Amino acid sequence: MVKRSGRRPGNQDTRSSILEAARQAFAEKGYDGASIRAIAGDAGVDPALVHHYFGTKEKLFLAVMNAPINPGELIPQALSGPRDAAGERLVRLALSVWDSPAGAAALAVFRSALSNEWTARLLREFVVTQILRRAVSELIDDPAEAPLRSGLVATQIAGLMVTRYVLKIEPLAGLDPEVLVAAIGPNVQRFLDGPLPKI
Amino acid sequence: MVKRSGRRPGNQDTRSSILEAARQAFAEKGYDGASIRAIAGDAGVDPALVHHYFGTKEKLFLAVMNAPINPGELIPQALSGPRDAAGERLVRLALSVWDSPAGAAALAVFRSALSNEWTARLLREFVVTQILRRAVSELIDDPAEAPLRSGLVATQIAGLMVTRYVLKIEPLAGLDPEVLVAAIGPNVQRFLDGPLPKI
Repeated sequence: MVKRSGRRPGNQDTRSSILEAARQAFAEKGYDGASIRAIAGDAGVDPALVHHYFGTKEKLFLAVMNAPINPGELIPQALSGPRDAAGERLVRLALSVWDSPAGAAALAVFRSALSNEWTARLLREFVVTQILRRAVSELIDDPAEAPLRSGLVATQIAGLMVTRYVLKIEPLAGLDPEVLVAAIGPNVQRFLDGPLPKI
Repeated sequence: MVKRSGRRPGNQDTRSSILEAARQAFAEKGYDGASIRAIAGDAGVDPALVHHYFGTKEKLFLAVMNAPINPGELIPQALSGPRDAAGERLVRLALSVWDSPAGAAALAVFRSALSNEWTARLLREFVVTQILRRAVSELIDDPAEAPLRSGLVATQIAGLMVTRYVLKIEPLAGLDPEVLVAAIGPNVQRFLDGPLPKI
């Protein structure tokens, strides 16, 4: 049991205990399987305290991952505007994050997912299932196609990240973002509204 | 100086010395900057012996990387056939390698490049510049466009690899290769023969 006396909002021990319990829960049960209630139990605190410190499960997860940005807050940028230019907006949004001051930390999470099974699982469940799939559902006519279409979009966005920022392949690494938006945006658009093969 | 007596073709010390000198030379000078002559000098052997053991610089490089396949030997498969289906053939070729018994080792080299600066540099110089760019040059009308077009193709192929095999994102991870060929091939094709933005 964590000692619960003292000024709670400023109690770094309690905050750390919750983060540690959350890290273990996410690692063992995945994003979907972990619950605030169980995490609170493991940390020996009331669930209300978890909400007090971290807000939603999504925000707790982002804190565990040391995420520099909340992808869920950025997605509306990609949704607003003409639907037939959504591919370009998604590429522009991804580049703007990675080229920003928070980009290095976002890259660190991504790199970690490439060598660490549980980070990979969480990135997969959280970024792809929670964030990207939700956004893609808003951009397409048939929600049943969201898993495949968002997966295909993920291939292009992840590949742009790996080649430009990790492998630093030229000319990609040095190109103006808008050149990449113009070159790659229409391909992402085709993944959103082009024909799909029968599965 | 490596002792040069004994049965040379079977001399594991000499072979190891050459490999070690080559590893250092590739790491320090990159693929283009490293020369067989300099590597032989560092290993204290005659350049002819390097050729005897390893053949070309390309093959020496593949030996240093423990590469399970020689991409240069696979590329002709992607080149033969109608040019407007080259995108599909490139995706099919990539999937056939990664799904093959050699796939795990190929993935290991790729993973290593994601966390190791010198492997990244070599993968960049070798796979992208030597192999992919050469192949793409054969598939397009204006060779001056080869760097950008092959870079764009690399974003899609690398992204497919990362999402399907490393992050194991569903439904991508479990899909039949031909479904992915049909879904992604046309996008690679657009990178080969579609419009390019002004740089």
